[in-house]
Amino acid sequence: MIQSQPLHVDVDPYHSRVTGASHIVERVDPVIYKNNPGILSPEQLSFYEKNGYLVFNSLFSSQEMKHILSHVDELKSDAGKQELAYSVVEPHSRELRSLFHTHDYDSLLKSLACDQRILGIVEQIIGSQAYIHQSRINFKPGFKGRDFYWHSDFETWHMEDGMPRMRALSCSIALTENNEFNGPLMVIPASHKKYVVCAGDTPRDNYKQSLRQQYTGVPDEAILTNLIHEHGIISSKGSIGSVTFFDCNLMHGSNSNISPFPRSNIFFVYNSVENMLQKPYCGLEARPEYIAVRKPVPLTKRKINFNDI
Amino acid sequence: MIQSQPLHVDVDPYHSRVTGASHIVERVDPVIYKNNPGILSPEQLSFYEKNGYLVFNSLFSSQEMKHILSHVDELKSDAGKQELAYSVVEPHSRELRSLFHTHDYDSLLKSLACDQRILGIVEQIIGSQAYIHQSRINFKPGFKGRDFYWHSDFETWHMEDGMPRMRALSCSIALTENNEFNGPLMVIPASHKKYVVCAGDTPRDNYKQSLRQQYTGVPDEAILTNLIHEHGIISSKGSIGSVTFFDCNLMHGSNSNISPFPRSNIFFVYNSVENMLQKPYCGLEARPEYIAVRKPVPLTKRKINFNDI
Repeated sequence: MIQSQPLHVDVDPYHSRVTGASHIVERVDPVIYKNNPGILSPEQLSFYEKNGYLVFNSLFSSQEMKHILSHVDELKSDAGKQELAYSVVEPHSRELRSLFHTHDYDSLLKSLACDQRILGIVEQIIGSQAYIHQSRINFKPGFKGRDFYWHSDFETWHMEDGMPRMRALSCSIALTENNEFNGPLMVIPASHKKYVVCAGDTPRDNYKQSLRQQYTGVPDEAILTNLIHEHGIISSKGSIGSVTFFDCNLMHGSNSNISPFPRSNIFFVYNSVENMLQKPYCGLEARPEYIAVRKPVPLTKRKINFNDI
Repeated sequence: MIQSQPLHVDVDPYHSRVTGASHIVERVDPVIYKNNPGILSPEQLSFYEKNGYLVFNSLFSSQEMKHILSHVDELKSDAGKQELAYSVVEPHSRELRSLFHTHDYDSLLKSLACDQRILGIVEQIIGSQAYIHQSRINFKPGFKGRDFYWHSDFETWHMEDGMPRMRALSCSIALTENNEFNGPLMVIPASHKKYVVCAGDTPRDNYKQSLRQQYTGVPDEAILTNLIHEHGIISSKGSIGSVTFFDCNLMHGSNSNISPFPRSNIFFVYNSVENMLQKPYCGLEARPEYIAVRKPVPLTKRKINFNDI
């Protein structure tokens, strides 16, 4: 078990949820912590450093993806049969929207999180061992998938979970095709290099609301307009099995989905073991362990063939 | 003034809002009423007949579009200053969402509706003189533009306005770029050849709700899934000034818009003068004149140069 290492910052460089107006400050942390050779080429590292994301059409064989898909189907079906603490359901239909913490209790997901094709890239970017800060499977249903407003994950992880610095990233594995119709992830490239200080207080137990629809920790329209005017929007479209890595501070969101095509993804959030959670900067109680892991297990890369599991 | 000509149909072929399940029946009306030469080539007519829509990148010069845009800006600004019977505003922000009936009281919009580049195509498709059944300017704001669920306009016009047969079409003129981010119009090609009988009653004064969000007269998910499985989805993307014509019974909808880019369009709905409104088939009172014109003025094609207006 890694011990928490307080960073002894006298002034929090990423304070947010202020009483004044939303505004932009500079990111004080690097994006790439280790420019050593690894899985990513210098060009790929440079693209990630500049844009804050990187997409791979296929890191896994189609045979492996079939195996993973069928496993997730089983998980979903099992989760539908019981009231799980780790699941978020649609308020009206009771349809499953997210299944959290799967890396912790499911052996295939645990292996997937440690797969060297993914974890190798993660370690290269954060320059240390990693642990899972949060894992989830998202099921954005067809016909009634809601939009998710622009936000930086780091702003929430900092304020509500106590993640001190920007040394974390998300990895999303597509379980369905992401196309222009089913509300794909939209990112503002290069937005990870600025930090948007948001206005407003954090309500108690905000996560119960914010996992469905986020109202706290969202930038104001003028700032978003400027960011998008400067950098544009990229939507992450791709077929089943495409893998997207994106920086913890990249501004992103998604539109609604009235198409019949669901949009499902496996999400792993990796944090550096040298960036352990402190007390939440918003001053409230920490979120539950299945939303933000406070007792982490450092991960070790493994060579895995999912056809054999 | 054209007199109403009852169609003496013993059995309504397009009855909807039934107590049983939503289901599909055949369209009994043609799509193209006059295959004579005209503005549209045989290929264009055939495309429209098969798919139910047709897009033109530019029917107007960029100079004309500039003129039209600046006029719409003025209209919007004037409408913002007063409480108009013809405007629909967002419930919370009071932001203008739609401005109805503009062809009736605004001379430029009146001219635009009669422009031979548009009306010529309309007349070729419906095979008669046309009148405006409904006109509006839609302002889908950036950041908070809501989605609009799948529906056939004709189903509503039939049940709530008493439009007897399918001999009408919409013409949409883009006032902003329509792109993958700002919730463009999505259509199911060829869906206009089937009629989806919808389940459920019509609430009184349904239009007050349905202009914001439609709950009545929407097909069920199984039917939509089949339609989209068979025909796919096409989204109508294009730059300012692109013009889309689509059949009154084409299934369409749009996703939400969290991008900063507004999506604004001028909409003209043209109906044939040989397809005059009857009493609403849902048995309730007719909707107001600014939503569904009952005292029409047949239009006469004009050659117009909007630089001179």
